[in-house]
Amino acid sequence: VERDEGTTAENMADKPALYSYWRSSSAWRVRLALGLLGVDYEYRAVHLVKDGGEQHKADYTDKNSFGLVPTLNIDGLELTESLAIFEYLHETSKIPGKAAAAGSGDGSLLPDDVAERAAARQVASAIATNIQPIQNLRVLQRAAAPGGEMEKKVEWANYWISSGFEALEKLLEKTTENGKSRFCVGNNVTMADCFLVPQVYNAIRWKVDVSKYPLISKITAECEALPLFKAAHPDAQPDAQP
Amino acid sequence: VERDEGTTAENMADKPALYSYWRSSSAWRVRLALGLLGVDYEYRAVHLVKDGGEQHKADYTDKNSFGLVPTLNIDGLELTESLAIFEYLHETSKIPGKAAAAGSGDGSLLPDDVAERAAARQVASAIATNIQPIQNLRVLQRAAAPGGEMEKKVEWANYWISSGFEALEKLLEKTTENGKSRFCVGNNVTMADCFLVPQVYNAIRWKVDVSKYPLISKITAECEALPLFKAAHPDAQPDAQP
Repeated sequence: VERDEGTTAENMADKPALYSYWRSSSAWRVRLALGLLGVDYEYRAVHLVKDGGEQHKADYTDKNSFGLVPTLNIDGLELTESLAIFEYLHETSKIPGKAAAAGSGDGSLLPDDVAERAAARQVASAIATNIQPIQNLRVLQRAAAPGGEMEKKVEWANYWISSGFEALEKLLEKTTENGKSRFCVGNNVTMADCFLVPQVYNAIRWKVDVSKYPLISKITAECEALPLFKAAHPDAQPDAQP
Repeated sequence: VERDEGTTAENMADKPALYSYWRSSSAWRVRLALGLLGVDYEYRAVHLVKDGGEQHKADYTDKNSFGLVPTLNIDGLELTESLAIFEYLHETSKIPGKAAAAGSGDGSLLPDDVAERAAARQVASAIATNIQPIQNLRVLQRAAAPGGEMEKKVEWANYWISSGFEALEKLLEKTTENGKSRFCVGNNVTMADCFLVPQVYNAIRWKVDVSKYPLISKITAECEALPLFKAAHPDAQPDAQP
């Protein structure tokens, strides 16, 4: 396991640093996790488009070999993969008093009940494996090759997000007991909501009619009203563009 | 959270049932998890190809709205998403005496050390999000549309697995400390190895030269020699085809 060079007790007390891009849905998930837990962090912008993408340059791929954001430096570790980061934060963040700092939810990423935890992880994982990767920038570029026409990109992304949302809506019928709960699982924000909201943003960007999915729409609206979600939104990031 | 209808103490003591397809890499991961933990289970075959795919029929999509395998019935729950299933099994399976039944490894899915757990989850998640979904059957079919030429499928799958393996090899340099450990993380089989081996099978199927990735090759060979991995192999499943 790789730790940062020069890890010392002093460094380990440093503020966590998040390598992020304002519009990346995976980085957005982790901004939400850190916000929910009330973890203060340094924002390090990685521009995914400028000069062919800073994420492909050696000083970034040394941290994240896939050339993807986010990467989180925390506790002397360099962590990649949003799902793995959530599990790490879940395991290490059970510190009393975090809830107040988070300002919403109960300051934990997963519910206390084991079956509800499984439900939250199923929602997050379904988005992270069955929907988002297939409409990711690099896949869209190849799906629309060689011409790279925007029309082809929209068609591809729209198809995968729409069919994914149909299935996700059905999964949410189970996890919310047909809409009885306020969020994806229960009445507190969990990991599942942190994965849902960025995916809905992508859906709108790729012209999916999200109103066709009532639970997805309702939960997203609940989330977007919270200060936690306003703070993590792409437009509120230091590298946001008009 | 949906539980099976008619959940009773008696049903909950029933043998777990795994909805699987011999060649599905996601179902294979879960066969490995159950094997590693020494959990006896009933195998329920879902034929992904016959008659347009049994996974799309209502009696299966009621269980798994994405129409994907695996689904695991266990403890009165119906669980989807291999990553979520691993976390559930990890949380619920810490029962002394499981190690002997597993016949290899230490009978647990994740290492004891928190940093090593994060490493194992990064490897598993990188495969499950950055590689496998993009070369999945349904994506290949659409990438090769409208003609569905095998040549186009090979080109697409080969590209994504090859570029994924280049990045994965670099991640494994970190998690194995440049090949010092026997498996992906440490000297016991973990979740990471359960995700790696099925992905290597897919790589070979799509004509990727796996010998270009020395750590991936070495770890896969270590795993394939174990009875655990022989038992979970597609060719050893009841629905295997010649």
